[in-house]
Amino acid sequence: MRIALGLEYDGSRFCGWQSQAEGCSVQDALERALGEVAGHPVRVAAAGRTDAGVHALMQVVHFDTNVTRPETAWVRGTNAHLPSSVAVLWARPVAEDFHARFSARERSYRYLLLNHPVRPAAAHGRVGWFHQPLDVARMQAAARYLVGEHDFSAFRSSECQARTPVRTLSRLEVRRVGALVVFDLWANAFLHHMVRNIVGCLVYVGKGKHPPEWLQEVLQGRDRARGAPTFPAAGLYFSGVRYEPRWGLPEGRGRELPFDAELGAVMDSAFR
Amino acid sequence: MRIALGLEYDGSRFCGWQSQAEGCSVQDALERALGEVAGHPVRVAAAGRTDAGVHALMQVVHFDTNVTRPETAWVRGTNAHLPSSVAVLWARPVAEDFHARFSARERSYRYLLLNHPVRPAAAHGRVGWFHQPLDVARMQAAARYLVGEHDFSAFRSSECQARTPVRTLSRLEVRRVGALVVFDLWANAFLHHMVRNIVGCLVYVGKGKHPPEWLQEVLQGRDRARGAPTFPAAGLYFSGVRYEPRWGLPEGRGRELPFDAELGAVMDSAFR
Repeated sequence: MRIALGLEYDGSRFCGWQSQAEGCSVQDALERALGEVAGHPVRVAAAGRTDAGVHALMQVVHFDTNVTRPETAWVRGTNAHLPSSVAVLWARPVAEDFHARFSARERSYRYLLLNHPVRPAAAHGRVGWFHQPLDVARMQAAARYLVGEHDFSAFRSSECQARTPVRTLSRLEVRRVGALVVFDLWANAFLHHMVRNIVGCLVYVGKGKHPPEWLQEVLQGRDRARGAPTFPAAGLYFSGVRYEPRWGLPEGRGRELPFDAELGAVMDSAFR
Repeated sequence: MRIALGLEYDGSRFCGWQSQAEGCSVQDALERALGEVAGHPVRVAAAGRTDAGVHALMQVVHFDTNVTRPETAWVRGTNAHLPSSVAVLWARPVAEDFHARFSARERSYRYLLLNHPVRPAAAHGRVGWFHQPLDVARMQAAARYLVGEHDFSAFRSSECQARTPVRTLSRLEVRRVGALVVFDLWANAFLHHMVRNIVGCLVYVGKGKHPPEWLQEVLQGRDRARGAPTFPAAGLYFSGVRYEPRWGLPEGRGRELPFDAELGAVMDSAFR
């Protein structure tokens, strides 16, 4: 039997999503907890692999098991064995040909950037930071050059293992919410560091270093060296996965978290 | 010379505000950092002492020094010596008769309660949690019984050192923001555990265990044993201090944090 899970995590103290020999990853913690509930070793496959320090409001995984448990056991039982920074939000039996990664049609990421002269403290580890004033209208103008199907080599880490640098960025929204600048991105899939590199370039435009059209130059140059520095992991949230309705999974985004509440409508409308 | 500072902190890894022999408090961290900038030992007095695990969006302190530093040194220099979970937001020279605690006219606290079947994960340590559905309208009706000048003995911890249990609660707002129930309270001062005990009683009403009028019974009974359990520290934020305008301090609340953005207007209107 194949089971899909939706989960949420604070990535601050993990070495990323993907399993490591030292057992320090979110995947390692989840597989240990699921193993306790299932009574046999469990291997999971995830919709997206997040880096160290990156959070998830909605990660989707699947695993196979030959034991039968009520859905509440996969949720509450697993949560009882997980550290406080990871939680399973829902569990569903799925068809054997469902795959958390390969069946995903669209993914979304959110970047929270504290735009304030003083560094984060109450929100440290949960937001990126930029101390100079940012012109959000300029950043919005620059963002438009990136929407569509493009070769995103200019925003791809040298460690990226994707077969092709071509991705379809269906939406890129930038807006100010109080002291935060919030970036929401949707694409069929993302390259390694793609969001954090895009945020870096948009910040260069927002602070006035380059005009909005510079984003088009960077994109067309396909050269990572022409872009801006990669922004820190702390502000990045894997925020949703969309699958075809036939799989019968819950909506693509998680519950409305503290910083998510005011922004919920954006995600809602994006997935309907 | 007397200097006032506004600061923000994540209380998760501190043993509370007040100085301890082990040096594990926010006050200890701040005094060490200020000592580095001043070049002499510094003692601070704060508007409110927060418990272990309680956060501050705006704490105000004052200290005396005989050295002259630009305001930016008291902000940036101190922040360079503080751990990542504490930051000074502003610094101002103040009159010698200003006192961060005794000059304060009003204080505010916010409690963030995640109301969802699954425990917090991405926001763990930053929110309280209640898993059953809560009827916010009932909680709002109950809250009205507490507003005004009352003997709040029923909501006071046995360790409370205040001379009198009488406080003037000027406002108590309860509202739902996504998966959160947000409590905002304003009073001339608060008793020990007063907010966390009030939240506990309002949750009992919200889940249907008692009618709204029960809050009046508890208040009038003046007996802590008749109330509900104290809610955890993780969801509690010291959110502002109001002083008379003659002291020339910045507005009473801090910058708009992730979870604060949508709620900023409430605090704005409260302090104007």
